[in-house]
This record gives sequence, structure tokens and C-alpha cells, in this order.
Amino acid sequence: MTESWVNSAQRIGADLHLDMPGSGGRRAALIQALREAVAGGRLAPGTRLPPYRSLAADLGVARNTVADAYAELVAEGWLTARQGSGTRVAERVEPPARDAVRVPGKAPARARGPRHDLRQGTPDASAFPRAAWAASYRRALQGAPSEAFGPGDPAGRPELRRALAAYLARARGVRTEPGRIVICSGFAHALRLLFGQGGGGVLDGPLAVEAYGLGFHRELLAAAGVRTVPLALDEHGALVAGLGRERAVLLTPAHQFPTGGPLRPERRAAVIDWARARGAVVLEDDYDGEFRYDRKPVGALQGLDPERVVYVGSVSKSLSPALRLGWMVLPERYVAPVLAAKGEREGWASVPEQLALADFVGSGSYDRHVRRMRQQYRRRRDRLVGALAAHAPHIQVSGIAAGLHAVLRLPPGTERTAVKAAVWQGIALDGLAAFRHPETGMRADDGLVVGYATPPEHAFGAALEALCGVLPPP
Amino acid sequence: MTESWVNSAQRIGADLHLDMPGSGGRRAALIQALREAVAGGRLAPGTRLPPYRSLAADLGVARNTVADAYAELVAEGWLTARQGSGTRVAERVEPPARDAVRVPGKAPARARGPRHDLRQGTPDASAFPRAAWAASYRRALQGAPSEAFGPGDPAGRPELRRALAAYLARARGVRTEPGRIVICSGFAHALRLLFGQGGGGVLDGPLAVEAYGLGFHRELLAAAGVRTVPLALDEHGALVAGLGRERAVLLTPAHQFPTGGPLRPERRAAVIDWARARGAVVLEDDYDGEFRYDRKPVGALQGLDPERVVYVGSVSKSLSPALRLGWMVLPERYVAPVLAAKGEREGWASVPEQLALADFVGSGSYDRHVRRMRQQYRRRRDRLVGALAAHAPHIQVSGIAAGLHAVLRLPPGTERTAVKAAVWQGIALDGLAAFRHPETGMRADDGLVVGYATPPEHAFGAALEALCGVLPPP
Repeated sequence: MTESWVNSAQRIGADLHLDMPGSGGRRAALIQALREAVAGGRLAPGTRLPPYRSLAADLGVARNTVADAYAELVAEGWLTARQGSGTRVAERVEPPARDAVRVPGKAPARARGPRHDLRQGTPDASAFPRAAWAASYRRALQGAPSEAFGPGDPAGRPELRRALAAYLARARGVRTEPGRIVICSGFAHALRLLFGQGGGGVLDGPLAVEAYGLGFHRELLAAAGVRTVPLALDEHGALVAGLGRERAVLLTPAHQFPTGGPLRPERRAAVIDWARARGAVVLEDDYDGEFRYDRKPVGALQGLDPERVVYVGSVSKSLSPALRLGWMVLPERYVAPVLAAKGEREGWASVPEQLALADFVGSGSYDRHVRRMRQQYRRRRDRLVGALAAHAPHIQVSGIAAGLHAVLRLPPGTERTAVKAAVWQGIALDGLAAFRHPETGMRADDGLVVGYATPPEHAFGAALEALCGVLPPP
Repeated sequence: MTESWVNSAQRIGADLHLDMPGSGGRRAALIQALREAVAGGRLAPGTRLPPYRSLAADLGVARNTVADAYAELVAEGWLTARQGSGTRVAERVEPPARDAVRVPGKAPARARGPRHDLRQGTPDASAFPRAAWAASYRRALQGAPSEAFGPGDPAGRPELRRALAAYLARARGVRTEPGRIVICSGFAHALRLLFGQGGGGVLDGPLAVEAYGLGFHRELLAAAGVRTVPLALDEHGALVAGLGRERAVLLTPAHQFPTGGPLRPERRAAVIDWARARGAVVLEDDYDGEFRYDRKPVGALQGLDPERVVYVGSVSKSLSPALRLGWMVLPERYVAPVLAAKGEREGWASVPEQLALADFVGSGSYDRHVRRMRQQYRRRRDRLVGALAAHAPHIQVSGIAAGLHAVLRLPPGTERTAVKAAVWQGIALDGLAAFRHPETGMRADDGLVVGYATPPEHAFGAALEALCGVLPPP
């Protein structure tokens, strides 16, 4: 729970844009900012506010300041406080005239968002291979048997599972066969299927996770009642020798997310040994395995022991997150339980698009697209490294051998300021702190996680220039 | 092309894990490694191997070593070499034991299922409008802004929400605007979003449900910790006067599922009055509202009070359940909480298909398809009624004014036997008992729920004949 509060405190904190003068002024400024956030609809009715200490820590104010501000707003009717339920935005608060919140037809938030989007996690949306994908979709629709338009197999279409089995063996060293592949809508869906929704999952916790990773995944697991235990890491990936009595471990072996190192060979072997010895499971998130630039490819960990590793991939980085298509490669004993968790009637991905992806992979279009994007992202990576060498040579950059993002190492104590400066300059990016497991004992290094795939090609130079402008001086 | 070969050479090279001693040993080791990769299924049948020089460079061996190894394996039958097509893994190579779980290529369960599928719930899969849908998809892909391929708005694409707002107003009497529509993957997904997954939903239980309905929905609600309270019904729909202190009620007002009556006008008014008086919510499942035959269309209950009714529809009956596309029309106060429940990162439907549906609806293709299917289903309904009149005139049939199924009323005590007889004759269908709420005090009438949409056109006559053969005698 702590972690989720810290995150929501940071989000709410970031949303408030507090400009705080003196000590008395802080309370007033916080009240004002919270009131506006509620009245403006940014904090929706029913939203639970973070505990005093989390928001206080995030805003750098005293705990009492937050407590006073909450009390005032409860008195004013903007918030409600109930025993055991914390402080929430009052339900009867009228949301603003709805146009203010969401004008129908207005583009989604991200589209009208920052001037330079350097957040990690998204490929270049302007590079989606429209013509080739449309051709695959058309062929798929024409060639599909009628039953494809009836109720689907929860495992996913056999055509796609066959195509993926061949592709993953060839490109990622995955050892499997179509009967062990289950189609899903992405990694988060895989997590839900494996760990259940409110208990009763296929896998049990506690789950070891890398000390740096996606907070979103940790929140999802926490909501499913799964305790996550942070595993320290260094430049060679997670320190798997620290694994103990956990029931499973979630790893990003090909390219640690977000710090960027591949898991060292002896650690790959060691984690498999651990899983075998303890009857545990390794969950492999191969989120950007296709994109590696200068060094030998790192095959999937799954190849070392298909009965001990659950491998998960998706098209979210390689094609587009808009397709909602992913896959799980399962040890045999989990196939039936995962299908049972999936249910017979819902939640599987669009069948026509599953067939389109089977065609796209089988016809070589997927390889061609990945190859083209690999070249484009490598060029961008080189431009990022070049810009830093020219304009901020004191900033070390790591995690650049693969993937769609890099980590800029900052001098101690400068991360918060750099992130704020970026916000002011219209740059969206995250500091390393945003990915840190709240319970880890690891030293907190300062750094920025810079996604270099998202800006459209024509805007990339300006984004780099803006980025160099917000870095701390030597 | 070079780049791809180099990469695939690197991948295959990495996969081989060659431990190469002397010069003679290299050739043997390479042959051994490749043979194992093929036999073990890591290199799938049909996979094209990299040219000699690429693999040689990547492995650091002589080109001739690779050429010799390939030649040997061609001779052994593991690989095939054809002019102009390079060296490939032989097609006849058996992948590793896979039968255990699921034979690849086997059709999904339903396809190899019963001879006559008369289960309710699925439209005629062979009538999916492939050409028109493919055209809409192509236009949607061509016209989409780049941001459509980035992270999506959890509410769904604005283009689709606009198209649906107009369509639902025109065709179903729904009063809304695009900002209150949230795209989902179908009714079950809507239930999950509204009632949460393991607590903390937007709506609270207990939830009144019709005494006959989909057991699947009741199970889903039970898993979410929501108590369902059965509401008795008659031929005019649910007896809403029986509503009490429940927090919400789930209804199928246009065409009670599965018994078939539309909710009587005074009951429509009464349930809205109840919801207003108690601050409760009506959940309207408009699952087959488009298909009505002889009588005036019944507009959506939602039109009576858009702030008291959550309206849910999908393309599962009108187009295909394979698309996984549905929509919720929400009272204003629920929009933000439902979006929060949906999460920012997952679970929304494919964006290209959302755009395709917007085009399909906006271009009139949806209306044309619904009209065509309405005529087809009405003819089928008439044939069903005709066959019963001719061969089983003692069997009363109800619920035939709309929808894709009818209810055959059976003499008391005969339902179980009739269902079993149907199974023996290769007919899939359900008895009324399958839909009955276990806690209802209603008298249990005997009956069969017969879906007449699913069999392909050419097989419908035989299905009717088989059905008449399993009905109890007068």
C-alpha cells in the first residue's frame, strides 16, 4: 500500500504546481491548489487522497501543513474524512461543466500534452506500418474460416499461436509450441491472469521484483493482494543471489527496466537453479527484446528451462500499444489454469487482429518493420549520446545497448530539480525515483529515464536540445 | 536484407551456444548444434537460415565450415536447399511432443462441436460482412492521426464515441453525448468495471437481477463479491414492484433474456421511480436491441432518465463477438470513476477497430448489415415457428417478437429429458433451468432456449428437423 500512496502523492503533488513562499503561505497555497484541483475535476469525486506523510514528503512541507489543509477542505465540504477510509474528494462535489473535463472528440490527454514527450514506454506512433498492416488485415479477413467470427478459443487463434511459436524460437530463442501459448492483451493482462483479481491466482506471492521497475505493475499486484519483495540490482541486472523463499520472481533479463543492463550469464543460470530448487517460477518480461543495437543478442531466459519460466511479450513496443495484443508462453502445467482464469467469454484480443498479426509475422512484414525501427531507434540513440557528449559531457548515460530509452546519471541530489525543470520546459520524462520500489534498501542514485522513441522524427532534434537545457551543470 | 541476415545469423549463432575446439571439431559441433536446434523445435519448419557468410562471421568460423554443415544437414533431411529460396528448415521435421496439451491447428472447441448448434447468444458467423468491414478498417487506418497508434484514451476513441452517440440516439432512443460513453470489450467487461474486481467498485451491491438470466454474469458478480437478488418475472418482464433496498438492478428491458418479453411500459416507469426514490441505479443490458421483427421497437430505458440508467451495448450480436467491442453510456457522475477503474494502461479495445467501427457506423454499413441480418433472422424465426406448427403443434413457442432465440415451452417435467435427447442427437442447446437464479422462489417452467442464428444458412433446415425430433410427444 505504501508504494501506491507514494505514487499517488507524487502524482497529486506534481499536479498541484505549488509555489510556496513562507511557512504560513504554504498552508494557504496547498489549500488553494487542492481546492482548484477538486473544483477543476483533476481530482475526481471519490478519489482517495494520500496520507499526510506521503504528500508532505513529496511536497517537502511539514506533515501538519498537509493535515491542516485537509481539515480545512473537509470543513469547506470539498473533501470528506471517514474513519478507516481516509480522506477522499467529496462525492457531492459537482464536476465542472463537462466540456471542461473532457470535450467529446477532443484528442486524448497525451496528444495535447507536453511539447516534448520523452517518457519511456511508447514506440514512435508516426511510424506505424499502416499499409502493410492493412494488407495483412485484409488478407486475414478474406482467408478466415467462418468460425473465426463466432465465439473464440480463449487461448487465442491457432494461426497466431503457430506463427508466434516459430517467430519466438527464431528471434528470441524461446522453446515452445503453439499449445503452450496463450494470447492476451499485454503484460498487465498477463499479470492479472497469473495472479488473479482479488485472490485465487495461478501463481502465488510473495513475488520478488527488481528494485527498479514499473510502479504500475507493482500497484496492479498490490491490488491483487500479492506482496512484492524488492531485489537489488547493479549494472549486470538483478542480484538473484538475494532470492530466498519467494514463490516467483519477475525479471527483465534482456534489458533491465529501466536501468538497462542485460542479466549476466551466471545470474541467468543461477535464477533457473533457484527456481528449480525451490519449485518457484521466473516471470520473464521481454518487453523490448527486439531492439538491441551494438552487442550480441541476449536470447530469452525461457530457453534455459521452459518448465520454470513464464515468458511474456507483446506488440506494444514493436508495433503499437493501440493493438492490445500480447502473448504468454507457459510451462505446460499452467496452460489449463491460465485458460480457466481467462474465462470462456471475454477479454481475449480481437480475432481479426490476431489473424492479421499471424499474417504479418508469417509474411515477414514483422521482421521488416522491426528491422526498420531498429535502425531508426539506433540513429536516435546515437543522436542522444552525441548531443549529451557535445552539450553535457559530464552526464554519464547508461542502458543504451538496447531498447527505446536510456538512463542519464545525475549528480547526487539533482534529480528532483531536473525533473521539475523539465516540466517547466514542456518536457515529459521521469526520474529514476519514479521506478524505485519503496521498500528497497538500495542506494537511490539520481537519474533521468529518457525515452527516445516517442517524438516524431521531425521534432526529435528540438527535444534533445530542450533536454540538454534542463540538465544540472557540471 | 543484409541487416536482417546478419541479425538472424546473430540470433541463430547466439542460440547455438557452440563450444568449438579444433578446426575439425567446429564443423561437427556446428552440425550437432543445428541439428539439435531443429529437432528441439527452436528452429521451426520453414525457417530460412542465414547465408553462409553471415553465420560464419557471427560464429567466427570459416565460410566453408558453415557450407559443409548445411550440406550435411540437407543430406540428413533436417534442412532443404532450393535455388533462389536459400536453405530452410525442412517442413516435415516433427516439432517436439506437443499433443499433450493442444494439437496446433486443431480448431477451437466450438468449431468441432455439435452437429447442430442451437445455443443462444451468437450471431451467424458466416454472415460477417467481411468486405464492408475490411473497407472500413482500411479507411480508418489511412485516416487515423498518428497519435491513434500511441497510448490510448481509456474512454475510447472520440471518433467512435461520437458515432455511437448519434447512432444510439437515432436507433435506440438513448440520450447521451460522446463524453459519457466509455468503450469496453463487452457486457462482462462493463460488469467488471462497474462492480470492481475483488471490492472497490463504482457501484455497490446488492444487485437485483432477473430470476432468469445469464449464469455467467451471476458468477462474475459473485466473484466480485456482489450479492445478486432474484426478481421474479412474467411474460411482461421483471416484476419491478418487488424491488426493495437493493442498490441497483440489472434488466434486459427490450427483450427479457432469455424468456423474451419486453418490459411493460408501466414497469419501465416504475423502475425509474424506484431508482430515483432510493438513489439506486438501473443497469440496462441492451444485448439484442437491434433485432425486432413484428412490433414497434422498444426504445432504451435509458432515455427515461440518463442520470439513473447505465446503458450497455456491444457488437457481439449485431456483428461478431470476435471483435470484443462494446460501450457503456454512463450517468455523468460515473464517468470519472469508471475511467479510474479502467486504468490508463490496459484493457481498452483495439484502437484501429474502434476507428473501423466509427467508420462502419458513420458510413451506414452498420445499418445495412443490421437490416440484412434482421431479414435473415426473421425468416429463420418464421421457419422455426413453421416447423413447430407442422411437426410439434402442441409445443408453445414464446419470445419470438425479437432477438436471436426463442423459448419452446415444454410440458412439466420434460425439460431434462429433452435436453439429453438433444445432446444424443448432436444438438447443442440449453434448457430454461440453465438460466434460473438458484435463489428464486418462482415456479420452474420447463422449456428449451433455442438460438436460431448460429447455424449457417445451408444447415438450418437440418437443424430444425433434428430439433423437432427430440421434443416430447403430446
